[in-house]
Amino acid sequence: MLRKLFAEFFGTFWLVFGGCGSAVLAAAYPELGIGFAGVSLAFGLTVLTMAYAVGGISGGHFNPAVSLGLAAAKRFSWGELAPYWAAQLVGAFCAAGTLFLIASGADGWSPGGFASNGFGDLSPGGYSMQAALLIEIVLTAGFLIVILGSTSAKVPGGFAPIAIGLALTLIHLISIPVTNTSVNPARSTGVAFYAETGATGQLWLFWVAPLVGAAIGALVWRYLLSPDESLEGIGGEGE
Amino acid sequence: MLRKLFAEFFGTFWLVFGGCGSAVLAAAYPELGIGFAGVSLAFGLTVLTMAYAVGGISGGHFNPAVSLGLAAAKRFSWGELAPYWAAQLVGAFCAAGTLFLIASGADGWSPGGFASNGFGDLSPGGYSMQAALLIEIVLTAGFLIVILGSTSAKVPGGFAPIAIGLALTLIHLISIPVTNTSVNPARSTGVAFYAETGATGQLWLFWVAPLVGAAIGALVWRYLLSPDESLEGIGGEGE
Amino acid sequence: MLRKLFAEFFGTFWLVFGGCGSAVLAAAYPELGIGFAGVSLAFGLTVLTMAYAVGGISGGHFNPAVSLGLAAAKRFSWGELAPYWAAQLVGAFCAAGTLFLIASGADGWSPGGFASNGFGDLSPGGYSMQAALLIEIVLTAGFLIVILGSTSAKVPGGFAPIAIGLALTLIHLISIPVTNTSVNPARSTGVAFYAETGATGQLWLFWVAPLVGAAIGALVWRYLLSPDESLEGIGGEGE
Amino acid sequence: MLRKLFAEFFGTFWLVFGGCGSAVLAAAYPELGIGFAGVSLAFGLTVLTMAYAVGGISGGHFNPAVSLGLAAAKRFSWGELAPYWAAQLVGAFCAAGTLFLIASGADGWSPGGFASNGFGDLSPGGYSMQAALLIEIVLTAGFLIVILGSTSAKVPGGFAPIAIGLALTLIHLISIPVTNTSVNPARSTGVAFYAETGATGQLWLFWVAPLVGAAIGALVWRYLLSPDESLEGIGGEGE
Repeated sequence: MLRKLFAEFFGTFWLVFGGCGSAVLAAAYPELGIGFAGVSLAFGLTVLTMAYAVGGISGGHFNPAVSLGLAAAKRFSWGELAPYWAAQLVGAFCAAGTLFLIASGADGWSPGGFASNGFGDLSPGGYSMQAALLIEIVLTAGFLIVILGSTSAKVPGGFAPIAIGLALTLIHLISIPVTNTSVNPARSTGVAFYAETGATGQLWLFWVAPLVGAAIGALVWRYLLSPDESLEGIGGEGE
Repeated sequence: MLRKLFAEFFGTFWLVFGGCGSAVLAAAYPELGIGFAGVSLAFGLTVLTMAYAVGGISGGHFNPAVSLGLAAAKRFSWGELAPYWAAQLVGAFCAAGTLFLIASGADGWSPGGFASNGFGDLSPGGYSMQAALLIEIVLTAGFLIVILGSTSAKVPGGFAPIAIGLALTLIHLISIPVTNTSVNPARSTGVAFYAETGATGQLWLFWVAPLVGAAIGALVWRYLLSPDESLEGIGGEGE
Repeated sequence: MLRKLFAEFFGTFWLVFGGCGSAVLAAAYPELGIGFAGVSLAFGLTVLTMAYAVGGISGGHFNPAVSLGLAAAKRFSWGELAPYWAAQLVGAFCAAGTLFLIASGADGWSPGGFASNGFGDLSPGGYSMQAALLIEIVLTAGFLIVILGSTSAKVPGGFAPIAIGLALTLIHLISIPVTNTSVNPARSTGVAFYAETGATGQLWLFWVAPLVGAAIGALVWRYLLSPDESLEGIGGEGE
Repeated sequence: MLRKLFAEFFGTFWLVFGGCGSAVLAAAYPELGIGFAGVSLAFGLTVLTMAYAVGGISGGHFNPAVSLGLAAAKRFSWGELAPYWAAQLVGAFCAAGTLFLIASGADGWSPGGFASNGFGDLSPGGYSMQAALLIEIVLTAGFLIVILGSTSAKVPGGFAPIAIGLALTLIHLISIPVTNTSVNPARSTGVAFYAETGATGQLWLFWVAPLVGAAIGALVWRYLLSPDESLEGIGGEGE
């Protein structure tokens, strides 16, 4: 179990450090910056790479909403949910702190939003709370369908990290202008406390929406898509 | 069968929501926007990710032209074509509606073209109807050759979603300036009714050209490329 | 044999239509254009996608230099070289013609360089003939090492199209400013005759350098890297 | 053994020529340049492609820090470390020299930083020595975890080059503004002597930090993550 928690710690560290790091350090660099597309690629590659590295140890969630969704889909035990969440949060905090140390190594730098998530005044494109709720729910639900489907027994082994990582890239390509893209409460929480913009006051949405979305995605998979529902219903951890 | 239709519904929803969503929400964001390259990547990743997730259930068409081409190549039953098309269209409509709700959550937003397809005045680069017809036919034909070839028995299992998804990315990298890229009548239809530009009046081309192109691609595969033609000719569903 | 030539025809058509098409139609679109990075991705994806689709039929060369290098490495029969080259050239010409038809469907369009290759005055960044020769030789040699290595028996089946396609993307990321990137005489020849810039007068370099580079890469693989040289030396088509 | 050293030579040549070549030749091309995102992709693809090509021969390190980390993790023999480092350095020097020859083929070109790594005045974004040390250590440690995890017995064969190559892309997406991204002492050393900026005076950091980071990553894997530690502790080269 300890090994699983280390895997979740390092994986979530990598996700927040790499994804938010690319946003804070490289997105808006003059002329040559990587923009939203580069940040989208970075977030996806954190998951792709760490899922190959430690996915075999912990399952490679790196995200409290994913852990919840997997539990709701009977692929993960409810009893491990709390320690997984804790490891993910600690990883996210350590990553945000490390990133803060590095970013403040440039003269005259100030954290600003520090890659935090937000809506309304804190949405990059000024989107409303309703729009933020809706898009985070829809994208997290889709994310869980991709996760559950690509790790099901039907898919040849080894491809799931590609599908899941690139799904996170896709999700960012769509939604950075709306909420700066969360779909991951640990990622949102880790950086919010370093932002100068009041991001902590909006953190609730980036717990509620991803968790609700993940539950919806898990139930859609289980009752509408999964080919093995009847078996799962009986035997527990089906696939 | 119902499970297959849900798979096509969710897959086509994801394709239209993700691909058109990236175009509407993120492509032209000031300075940091993802541009046509990011939109191309997003469209491709919708197919890559959902083909891994639900391809094992429905085949992962998400596109009426693909369903037609597969039927023409004897890889899909003609009898399932109509329900597949229906599920794809409903998925596309729901995605466009959801996207509209989210996009209108930013002050002062107006739909404009809403990522619809067009030619002549409605072509991003002002290309003629003839150019639009030709490029949509050629690219859909090539798309079907990639789909039929990469899912044939010769290719090790599991790689097809990568080949097919990235083929859609390639197709967008080439042709967004010409028609805003369709090769998928459901995608074109779903968003056309939300556009303020009269895109519905040009919808016919984005049914005719992809369907004709898909049929050509299927016949090219079957008669010029497939190594099992003689067997297919006799036994029906060859591979 | 005819099936192999069709595969080479369609694959090379796709390479030239997709790669040069993205350059001609989408690279320099105002604000949202895909730039050199998008063109690099497009070229690579043409090979990745068609290698999955028809690589099992013809080997998926789509490039006279690749066919020569494979023959020099004893992976392809010298007797098939001429018909392969012919199919590749015909495919490239048809692709360039189709692209010309489409591109001229925009008002006021003129072909300019039409994605042709060049050095000196015709190099995008004004690089000398010596620089052009050197970079085309080095990159084609590296391309052949990647092709021969990733298709050797040591690598699990199915990954070669990813390695080879993305090698072509890499090659373009480096060298578009120098020569507009060839490493493929068929691609260079197909579009040169449509250019208004005198690209045909420089075509010799884009035959000489890729062919020399491919031969060097093949010999490096065979004598310095291949683990099976002794066996290949005896039995001919080793792997 | 000689074959292994050739593999490391060509692989490191490709990494430095391709990665630094894309930076020197293509990153800042007016309007259409590939930017930091394109350079990040290029570095990653050099490793992805050559790991498929020659990874089966030498293990595909192409990086003194990776060789050290693999030795520290008991996946590589300490006795081979010195010749591997030599082959990597010679490859990097040859690549930098070839690139210099090509780049100087454009009128009025001057090397400037020549894609060298740096901190303080030589950091692209003006980051301090402390920030440079920290980010190079963290990213190299993460790189080693990805390498060790994705090549462990738990992961289906063949995917490691994708995970490792794209990890290098990710690392560049984050850190080019800070140090121009090293995580590889051979890459730093090869180009430093061609720079006009005094990059050689800072080379020590790009040996110390990647080597320290690689050792940390290896120990983290071995003692906190590896599922086979007890076995490895006894039998040596576990997986």
